[in-house]
This record gives sequence, structure tokens and C-alpha cells, in this order.
Amino acid sequence: MTDPYLDLLPRLRRIHRLSGAMALLSWDQEVTMPAGGARSRAGHRAALAEIIHAQLTDPEVGKLLADVAARDDLSREARADVRETTRARDRAVKLPAALVRELAETAALAHPEWVKARADDDWQRFAPHLAKLVELKRQEAAALGSVDEPYDALLDEFEPGLRTAEMVEIFAGLRPALADLVGRFTTPDPDALSLPAGPYPAATQGELSRRILTAIGYDFEAGRLDISAHPFTESMGHGDVRVTSAFHADNLLSGISSTMHEGGHALYEMGLPESLRETPAGQAVSLGIHESQSRLWENHVGRGLPFCRWLAPLLAETFADQFGGTTPEAIYRAANVVQPSPVRIEADEVTYNLHIVLRFEIERALFAGQLEPAGVPDAWRQFTRQDLGLDLADDRRGALQDIHWCTGSFGYFPTYTLGNLYAAMFWNQARTDLPDLDQQLAAGEFGSLLGWLREKIHERGSILTAAELCRDITGRDLCADDFVAYLEAKHGELNSL
Amino acid sequence: MTDPYLDLLPRLRRIHRLSGAMALLSWDQEVTMPAGGARSRAGHRAALAEIIHAQLTDPEVGKLLADVAARDDLSREARADVRETTRARDRAVKLPAALVRELAETAALAHPEWVKARADDDWQRFAPHLAKLVELKRQEAAALGSVDEPYDALLDEFEPGLRTAEMVEIFAGLRPALADLVGRFTTPDPDALSLPAGPYPAATQGELSRRILTAIGYDFEAGRLDISAHPFTESMGHGDVRVTSAFHADNLLSGISSTMHEGGHALYEMGLPESLRETPAGQAVSLGIHESQSRLWENHVGRGLPFCRWLAPLLAETFADQFGGTTPEAIYRAANVVQPSPVRIEADEVTYNLHIVLRFEIERALFAGQLEPAGVPDAWRQFTRQDLGLDLADDRRGALQDIHWCTGSFGYFPTYTLGNLYAAMFWNQARTDLPDLDQQLAAGEFGSLLGWLREKIHERGSILTAAELCRDITGRDLCADDFVAYLEAKHGELNSL
Repeated sequence: MTDPYLDLLPRLRRIHRLSGAMALLSWDQEVTMPAGGARSRAGHRAALAEIIHAQLTDPEVGKLLADVAARDDLSREARADVRETTRARDRAVKLPAALVRELAETAALAHPEWVKARADDDWQRFAPHLAKLVELKRQEAAALGSVDEPYDALLDEFEPGLRTAEMVEIFAGLRPALADLVGRFTTPDPDALSLPAGPYPAATQGELSRRILTAIGYDFEAGRLDISAHPFTESMGHGDVRVTSAFHADNLLSGISSTMHEGGHALYEMGLPESLRETPAGQAVSLGIHESQSRLWENHVGRGLPFCRWLAPLLAETFADQFGGTTPEAIYRAANVVQPSPVRIEADEVTYNLHIVLRFEIERALFAGQLEPAGVPDAWRQFTRQDLGLDLADDRRGALQDIHWCTGSFGYFPTYTLGNLYAAMFWNQARTDLPDLDQQLAAGEFGSLLGWLREKIHERGSILTAAELCRDITGRDLCADDFVAYLEAKHGELNSL
Repeated sequence: MTDPYLDLLPRLRRIHRLSGAMALLSWDQEVTMPAGGARSRAGHRAALAEIIHAQLTDPEVGKLLADVAARDDLSREARADVRETTRARDRAVKLPAALVRELAETAALAHPEWVKARADDDWQRFAPHLAKLVELKRQEAAALGSVDEPYDALLDEFEPGLRTAEMVEIFAGLRPALADLVGRFTTPDPDALSLPAGPYPAATQGELSRRILTAIGYDFEAGRLDISAHPFTESMGHGDVRVTSAFHADNLLSGISSTMHEGGHALYEMGLPESLRETPAGQAVSLGIHESQSRLWENHVGRGLPFCRWLAPLLAETFADQFGGTTPEAIYRAANVVQPSPVRIEADEVTYNLHIVLRFEIERALFAGQLEPAGVPDAWRQFTRQDLGLDLADDRRGALQDIHWCTGSFGYFPTYTLGNLYAAMFWNQARTDLPDLDQQLAAGEFGSLLGWLREKIHERGSILTAAELCRDITGRDLCADDFVAYLEAKHGELNSL
């Protein structure tokens, strides 16, 4: 009698490999593809999405999964393979192939239109694409079914099992706490704390980012750094994890933050267990955990005083004309200015989650049928006024700022907040476990932190669920306490300086 | 009753789209992929090759093909679709899926090893990969069957229906004619004709190549130019046709030739009929015709005096320090030095086909079982001595110089000679049809030549076979006469100057 697990594995490997090819189609579209290739690319993505869907919904996979699940001698890796594949397959079988194909094609065609719409601040250019994507995602949500409301089905794609009601509860606690922190800690005179005005040439910022990435442990033999309209990380598979960043001539810290953020994502992908390559158990467990890695490196490390101590001489060397006399403390203060601003990826740690609340509310309303796509820019302005106290002058820095919708990723944003909460919990634990951490970071020694993250998170792939992982590492369930306490302590101290 | 052609078309479109995704996997591997991605990439390519094979061999495709072929009201486009799909499918059904998968995986793993082996002149590094590829291709040839000898089956992949015996006959006529031309036209003192020594920075050569490509009609909105170990053209589909070139600091003409060659390939792909996109009828008809386009632009245009008249001021502008007083005639002479040399892609027009003879003989011997892969470097040296009169100092410029084998492309090289012969025939016809051609080229007006090529060749896709196309354009069957007469006239005149 053959072991059904041994028959299942090659099928899972094939699905993984085809998904890797799909990742390259996506990376290339955002980084290297000429504009004229958009229509052909939509065809590639539609065909491959349909094939992956067919592979996953193949009845033989269902049978093998059931046979494997019925065995009582499964390794924990096999159990994770079954869990993750069952989840993905249960979703896939509910979706008609034609919808899968059309969503892939529509998203691929929407991406270049979003790029142009954002560059030209031309909402109308993007509007019909958003309308079509929302319509298709509504069909998807209806086909998937949900616990309470259609948006549940979309959240579940990125954070398995996450429900809208849970996010509502998280935000219900977080929102007043953030409002209080914003009230107390908004920097009175941000201009007084600005770094030298630049200009910082993109090529030099790119070189700086390469040095930073190399220092924190990113392996350029297994990746590359490019520039794209919106920074992102894409893994084509083990040994090929690429990041992009975006550089602004007048804002050095924005580029460093983007690089640290994507570097954090990439270190997670690069640290996944080689022994489980091409299996579901060997992949990242959830987007929430993924964002915990990006936000931990971006904020807890990158916006911390020890890191600024390491960064200061590097900036002085790279931009000698501007950074001659800038102290680590000045960089630290500039990196931690609290100031409501329209763009999420440039937001400080205190106001950042307000940007997520805004997107969550809009997405939820879209999928509850309370908001039509045409009403999004107005809703965006209204929320920006209400939650951030800002009047938006354009859509470029408003409803057009993020790439997620044009890729069909609705329900992704809340994972950033989950990531912030997880990151604060993991950070507390790491500081307990690594008492010398501050000195190490100040000396540019990132190895023991990376080693800790690898051991506790990266090397475990999907063997534990996100919730189990959190309990295993911190002894507690996900909560906002550590995050709020972290902001309170850091900005309280900054304010008292 | 439904039209079976309407059921067949979406299947052909899907195969075309998946092949486009495969093309990107290949382009990226040679241009942008980090070294560490090789193993994952081999997995991507194996999985996608297997899927494409399964799509093509699907019994339903066979049934639909038969149903379509049985109809007597087919358009010529539909007839071409049937012809090309039947040919591809007849090959595919003879090949086991496991062999298809293993070949794709082996080739993907061999490519980076070839790159390193060539860079380090380290044959032993590439040897085991070549041995495995030859073994798999022997299995492929055996499975495909052949008319006279196993090599027939490999030739047929690139030039439908071409048999080894035909190539033997072509070379039997060509070889003595070339020996005679080499004897009479070898440049006595090539150094006296050299262009300024450089150095020519790669970035500036890249800019020059962009200007040349733009001038001849290459559309950068639908393509891009990169640098790779071996220049190539890859089409991801309509609107996305990318070229690479290679630039040497001490050899300006080599880079220009590579760019013109790949530009010729790209113009063919860019000129394929939009109305037949994603159908077999809308694709390039054969590699021989493809190489006729690259060689026509590289040689008949690029190595002609009119083109040098246009090029001279461009070089003077780009490399002012070196090219101040260089005349068009001096460039023309330097571009047409006849001199046996070890590297095919740097060879002059007279000796070029001797490089193809060499590869043809080695490949034929490999697949007739008369030569083992381990014996290739020695055989290469022996042929180089015998056919080119040169003693090879290394394998880097010998058996390691070409990319083709590491991609599993055995039987490809002869299409270069076919391309040279077709190109000379088409060039004669174009000169007859376009009496002002020389003046136009000298003025940098490439539009009427490109228009002629589009009308006669590009826009016709695969509606006619290569042989039918040749007869339709020139009124004659493929032969070497035009090519030999072209060399005779050009080099006779050059010699008398």
C-alpha cells in the first residue's frame, strides 16, 4: 500500500512551482515589463491562474488530502501541509474557473492604469478598473460565503480565519488609544526637527539601501533591489527573494523606511526552512506574521535610537555634504516626528494604524454594499478629514496611493495592523531574550536579532498557525497592549527630551 | 452544431499564453534573476513545461484538430493553425511527460553553470550538464523518430521538416565556395583597418544601441534592451519583445552587430499580425526565416556602406574623442574585415557559416553516437584548426562560447545558415522592389525597408510555410546562389578599392 502523502507531495510541489512562476509575472510587471506588454501579461496571468486553480481543485487532490488526513501517524510538517492545502482548496473549489481567470486578467490590466492614474492624479482613469475589480471580488466573496459579512471571506485570504468582527474589536480598542497618543505626542514643530533638505539622488539612496540590506542580513546572491511605483517584496521561491524600494530626492528617511520594511519581509522569506522548500508547511504562515517582520525591522529597529547610532556615520559617509554634523539623536528625532500625513507608507508609528482604519472602513463598506466604487475618493477625503484631520488636495496622495486594490487585494490592509501588534509583542520578547540588543544594534550587529527571529519564526514556516506561534513565542494571545505601551514609552521619552 | 474551431481557439490561446510565461522565466533567468534562484527556476520551468505538454497532448485537442481539419470551409488562418498545432502536437504526444519535465529542469540548471564555466574557462564545470542534456536529447530524438538519422528529429523542432541530408547537401555546395572566398578575400592586414581602440564604456554603447534600435523601428514602449552573457531576443507576446546585447570595451563593432542582429529578430516579432495574436497562425513561421531577419539587418543593412554613412556621424557624436575623423568608408572596411576568428557571433560574413558547419558536424556526430559529450572540446579544436585554420587557446572562445546547448537547443545552429541564404534572396528582392534603398539607408530612413519586410514576411505570420514564403517573395526555392554572389560582389569590390 502506498503512502498517500508521497502521492500528494509532488502535486503540492507543482502548485508551488506554478505559483512561483506567477510571482515572477507579477514582479516583472511592476519592475521590468515595458508598457506595451500589459495585455499579453493579463493573458499570461489569467492562463496561469486558471491552471493553478485546476491543479488545486483536481478531485484527486481532494481524495489524497482526505486519505492523508485520516492517518494517525502524521508528522507535524505533514499536518501543516494538510491544514494549509485544505484551506486553500476549500476556497478554490467554491470559485468558478471563469471568475478566477477573469480576476487575474482584470487585475493585470488594472495595474498599469493605476500606475498612470497615480502619476497623473487622474482618478477617472482608474475608476472603471476599480469598479470591475470590486464587482468581481463581490462575486468571489458571495461564492466563498462568510461567517458574518462578505468582507470576512476576503480577510480570510490573507489572515486565515480572521473575521471582520475581530478587526472591529481590535480597532475599537486601538482607535481611542491612538487618538489619545496623537493628541499628546503630535510634534509641535516638525520643521525644526527635519533632516537636511537634500537633494538625495536616487542612485545614491539605492547604494545606501544596498548597504543597509546587506548589514541586516539580506543576501544579494538570493535577491535583488529595484525601484518600483510602490515598494514590495516578491519571492519566486527559495533562493530568489526580491525587494523594491522607492526613493524621493527630498525625503531620505522615506526610502530608508521602505527598504527596512521590505527587508523585513525578505528576511522572513529568506529564513524559511530549506528542508521544507516547495511544501505548504515551509511557507510563511500568514500576512499578519509577515507584516510583523516588516514592521519590526522598519520601526522597532529602524526607528530606534540604537539603529540611528549605527546609521549616522553611514549617512555622513554617503551624503557628506549634508550630514556632516548630524547626530544620531537628530536622526532619531526626525524619524519619529508624529504628524498626521496623507500617505500611509510615510506615516509615523503613532498615526499609521489610523490609515489602516480608514482603508478597513472603506473596504468593509464596499463589500457590505454601503459604498459604491465611484464614491471611494469622497469617502477617502471624508475619513482623512475625520481620522487624520487633513484636507486632501489630490487623489494621488489619497485613494490612489496604494497598489493593493489594483492587484485585487481587498482585505489585505488589516494585516498591517495585526503586524504592528505582533511586532510589538515579539520585540518585547526579543529584548527579554537578548539583553545586549541595543548595544548590538548600535554597533551594526544585527545577527543575533535575526538569529532569534529565524529560530522563533522564520524556520518554523507554517508548522504552527499564527495564533499558536504568537502563544508559543510570547505566552500570550494577540493583543494591542504591547504596541500601545511601546508607543507610550517611546514617545513619552521623546517628548520629555 | 458548434464550430469546432471556436472550441479549439481558446485552447490554443491558453497554450500560447503559458508559453509566454515560460518565455519570461527564460528571459529573467538570463537577465535579472539572482544566482541563488537557479534551483527554484528549474522547478518553475519543469512544472510549466509539463503543463504545456499536457495541454497540447490533451485528447480533446486531438479530437478538435481532427474535426477542424475535416472541414472544407477553413480560412487560411485556420488552416495554418491546424498545420502548426498538428505539427507541435504530433511531436508532443511522442514524448513522455517525465522527459519533458526533466529536460526543462536540466536545462534551467545547466544555464547558470554554463555562464560560470564560460566566464572561468572551466569546461569541467559544464561537462556533466552537457552530458545529461545530450543523454536526454538522445532519448527525445529516439522517441520522436526520424527519417534518416536521429538528428533529423532535432532539426525539425526549429525548422519544420528540415532533414539532416538537406543540410548536408547545402553545406556540400557552400563549403567549397566559402573556402574559395576565404582564400581570395581574407584581409591581408586587418590591423591597418581597425577602428580607434576605445575604450568604449558599456553604458555609452548601450545608449548608442538604443538610438540605433529606435532608428530602425524598434519600439521601446513594447520592449527593452538589456545586457546578457549571450545576446538574444525573447518575445513574451504581442507588445513585449525584449532584446539583449553584449558590449566589449575594446570592440565597438561587435556590440553594434549584436544589437542589429537582435533588432532584426525583434522587428519580426513586433511586426507579427496583431489580428492573429495568441494564435499559431500569428507567430513566426520558422527559425530559418527568423534568422533571415536578424542576419539581413546585421549584415546586408548593418555591414553595408549606406548604413555606415548614416552611422559615421552618430559615432562621431557618441565617441567624439575617438571618432573625430573616421570616414564612413573606414567604418565600412573595418566592419567587413575577412579574418577567420574563433567566436561565431563576431565572425565576418564570409567565415560565419564555417562556424555553423563546425557545430553541425559536432551535433550530428553527438546524435549519431559517433562522439561523446566529453570529446566535444577536442573535436571543437580539431574542427577549428581544420575549417578556420586556428589553434584555440581556451574553451571560453571555443566549445563554451554559445548558449544554445545549455538551453537544450540542439539542431538550432543550422537555421543560421538557412537564415543567411534566405536573407540574401530577400535582400536582392528588396533592392529590386525599392530602387532608392541605398539612399534611404544612408539617410537613416529605414521605414520603407521595414515596411517591405512587414508586408512580405512579418504580417503573414505562419500562414505560408517557410518554403512557400520564399517562393512567394522571390519566385524561387531556397538556394545558396544569392548569398555566394552577394559575398563575391561585395568583397570583390572591397578588395579592388
